[in-house]
Amino acid sequence: MPLAYAAEGIARMTGREPFVTKDRLRIAQYRMFFNAAKAERELGFRARPYREGLADAIEWFYKAGLLQMVAEPRLGPAAHPRTARMPSKAGATMTVSGEAFLSQLTAVAAEIESLIDRLLAAPAIEGKRARPQRLLDAMRYASLNGGKRFRPFLVVAIAALFDVPRKRALMVGAALECVHCYSLVHDDLPAMDDDDLRRGHPTAHKAFDEATAILAGDGLLTFAFDILARPDAHPDPAVRIELLLALARASGLGGMVGGQMLDLAAEGRFADGRPQAFDEAAVTTLQAMKTGALLRFACIAGGILGQAIGAEREALERYGSAVGQAFQIADDLLDIQGDSTILGKAIGKDAKAGKATLVGVLGSEQAKARLKTLVAEAVAALAPFGAAAWVLMEGAKFVAERKA
Amino acid sequence: MPLAYAAEGIARMTGREPFVTKDRLRIAQYRMFFNAAKAERELGFRARPYREGLADAIEWFYKAGLLQMVAEPRLGPAAHPRTARMPSKAGATMTVSGEAFLSQLTAVAAEIESLIDRLLAAPAIEGKRARPQRLLDAMRYASLNGGKRFRPFLVVAIAALFDVPRKRALMVGAALECVHCYSLVHDDLPAMDDDDLRRGHPTAHKAFDEATAILAGDGLLTFAFDILARPDAHPDPAVRIELLLALARASGLGGMVGGQMLDLAAEGRFADGRPQAFDEAAVTTLQAMKTGALLRFACIAGGILGQAIGAEREALERYGSAVGQAFQIADDLLDIQGDSTILGKAIGKDAKAGKATLVGVLGSEQAKARLKTLVAEAVAALAPFGAAAWVLMEGAKFVAERKA
Repeated sequence: MPLAYAAEGIARMTGREPFVTKDRLRIAQYRMFFNAAKAERELGFRARPYREGLADAIEWFYKAGLLQMVAEPRLGPAAHPRTARMPSKAGATMTVSGEAFLSQLTAVAAEIESLIDRLLAAPAIEGKRARPQRLLDAMRYASLNGGKRFRPFLVVAIAALFDVPRKRALMVGAALECVHCYSLVHDDLPAMDDDDLRRGHPTAHKAFDEATAILAGDGLLTFAFDILARPDAHPDPAVRIELLLALARASGLGGMVGGQMLDLAAEGRFADGRPQAFDEAAVTTLQAMKTGALLRFACIAGGILGQAIGAEREALERYGSAVGQAFQIADDLLDIQGDSTILGKAIGKDAKAGKATLVGVLGSEQAKARLKTLVAEAVAALAPFGAAAWVLMEGAKFVAERKA
Repeated sequence: MPLAYAAEGIARMTGREPFVTKDRLRIAQYRMFFNAAKAERELGFRARPYREGLADAIEWFYKAGLLQMVAEPRLGPAAHPRTARMPSKAGATMTVSGEAFLSQLTAVAAEIESLIDRLLAAPAIEGKRARPQRLLDAMRYASLNGGKRFRPFLVVAIAALFDVPRKRALMVGAALECVHCYSLVHDDLPAMDDDDLRRGHPTAHKAFDEATAILAGDGLLTFAFDILARPDAHPDPAVRIELLLALARASGLGGMVGGQMLDLAAEGRFADGRPQAFDEAAVTTLQAMKTGALLRFACIAGGILGQAIGAEREALERYGSAVGQAFQIADDLLDIQGDSTILGKAIGKDAKAGKATLVGVLGSEQAKARLKTLVAEAVAALAPFGAAAWVLMEGAKFVAERKA
C-alpha cells in the first residue's frame, strides 16, 4: 500500500511511469516524503538524533545516485514509449535536484488545493449557519486558482526537517495561503492597484463585483485564523497560539498591510500626487513588510510546528529573510523583463505606477547581483540542517530564477 | 487607595461628587466592580459558591437602598451645588438601576477607548517593524471614535459574573471592538453601502481615501486576532484559542461577513437589480449572521473567559441570541423613525436601499411587540445568575429602548 502510494506519487509528480524496483521505490518514498522515522526504522539509520540520521540518509542517496531516480526513473530503452524524450543524465545532478524540488512544490500545491477545496466546501462545519453561496464562490475563486503555493511549500518542507506530521504543516500552509490570496484580492481592487488580471484570469472584482471581492477578502483573512485555531493544525493550543500570533504580526499593521500602505505612499498617492523618492533602506523596509513578512512567517511556522530550538529558529529566520528579499527582487525584475503570457498578468505596471523597487533604486545589473548574494545567504543559513535541507536550498534558487 | 479609586470612579461615572461615608463608598466599590472575592472576604458574605454570595450581596444592597447611592449620592442639601438638579428618589428603583447601567457602560467605554489607544500606539510592540503613520492614523480614526462599546460591555459584565479579572475581559472586548469597527469601515465603502457619515463624523474613506480605508479595515481585523492571541487576554493558551476560534466563526463566512453578503443580495445587487423578497425566516438568518453573531460572541466570550459550565454557556447563548435580535430590530426601527442628529448617520437609508429588515416584513407595531418579547427572553435567560446579572438585564432593556 505505501509502495503503491509512492508509485502513484512518482507518476503524478514526474509525469512518468515508475518502472523501477521495489527497493528503489521505497527509497524514493523516503526521499519524497522525508519520513525520517520510517527511514530510521526500516533502513536502520542511526536513530538519534533523527536529523543527523536523515542527513546521513540523504547523503547516502545522493552518493548512490538514487536521488536522480525520483525525477528520472532509469527505464530500460523499450520499457516505456516516453523514454526517448527523456533528457540525458550527463551532469544532471543539479538539474535533477531542481526538478525534484519542482516535483515536491507541485505535490504540495496539489495537496493545498485539495485541502482548501475541502475546507471551503458548501456545507458549514459543525452545524454552523449556512455559508452564502456567492460569497463562498468568490472565496473559492480567489483561493483555488492554481497558484504556485510556494509559501505552503516552505511550511511543509521546513516542518519536515523536524519530522512534523505533514497534515499539520498543510493546515498551516492552507491558512497562510488564505492570507496571501485575500491580500491579492484586496490589492487588485480599483481603489488599490486596479488590476484586471491575476494568474491569467480575471481578478475577483472583475469575475464578481467590487463588494463581493471586498467581502471575499475579509472572509479569507478571517478563515485563515479559523483554520489555524483548529486542533488539526497542532494538538497543543500553545503551539497554535504561537502560530496565530506570528501570522497576525506578519499580516498586519507592522507587516503585510503596513507594507501595502507604504507601497501606495511610494506611488505618491497621499502627498502631492507624485511618486516619493524611496532610498534603498526605505525600499528594503517596505518590501520586508509587504512581501517579506509572509514568506518569513512561512519559514518560522515550520520551526514553531516542530518546536525548534533557538539556534534553529534563528537559522530559519535568516533563510526566510533572504528568501523574502530574493522573492521580491525577482518579482521586480520580472515586472520589467518578464513574459506577460507566462506571468499571467500585465508587465511594466510597477514602473508606470511609480512603485518603489530595489531594481529601480539599484538598476537591473546590481539587483541581479544582489539576488545571487541573497540565494547564497539563504543556502548558508541552512547549514545547520545539513543535506536534509537540500530541497529548501533548491527553493531559494527557484525563487531567484523563476519565470512566473 | 481603593477607596480613593472608588470615589474617583463614582465621580467620573455619575458626574457627581461622592459625598458619602467611607462604608458606603466601600460598598459602592464592590457594587461597581462586582468584586465578589473581596466582598466575601471583607464583608463576610458566604464564601461558597461565590456567585450565590454575590447575588445575596446585591440583594442586600438593593434592600438596604444602597444601590441607589451609585447613581444618586445622598447629599445634604447644602453639600454640593448640583444637588438641586438631582431627580427625586420616589419610585426610582428601576430608573436608578438603568442609570447605574449607563454608568457602567460609560465606564467600560472609557476603559476600552484607553486600551485601544494604548494598543494602537505609534511605537511598534516588541521591537517589530515600524507602523506606517497614515495607516495607524486611519486605524485609530476608525476605532477611537467614541462608540458606545456595547459589545465590550457585554464581555466585561458577563466575565464579571464569573469573577474574571477585568483586565482580561477588556482585552477581549478591545479585540471584539476592532472587528466591529473594521466591519463598519468596509461596510461604509462606496462599493458597499456608500455612507459618508458614521457616528456624526466622516466615514474612514471620506476622512482618508478608499485605499487607506480598505487597508485600515484589513489591519483592524488582523489586529483583533493579534490582541486575542496575547497572554494578557488569558494566561491559558487553550482559553485564548477557544476565544479566537469563536471570534473567527462569528466574524467570517458563516457569521458577520456572510450576513453582509446576504444583506447586499437582499438589495438585489446580484440578481436583476431589484430587491429580493426575503421572508421572516430569511431575514432572521441574515440578521443573526450580520449583527447577531458578534453580539452572541460578546456574550459567550465572557463565559469562555470564566470557563463557565455547559448550562451557564447555554444561558449566555440564549441571552446573546435574544439581545442580538433585539439590537437589530431596534436598529431598523431607528432607521425609519430615529433622529439623524442623535444617531450620527442618515436615516431612511435601509428602506431606500431595499434592505431586508424584520420591520419591513412585520411592520413597525409587530416589530415593537417582538422587541418586548425578546427583552423578556433575554431577562429570563439570565435567571440562573440571579440578581448578580441585573446590569445585563438593564443592558437588554437599553438595547431595545436606545435612541442612538
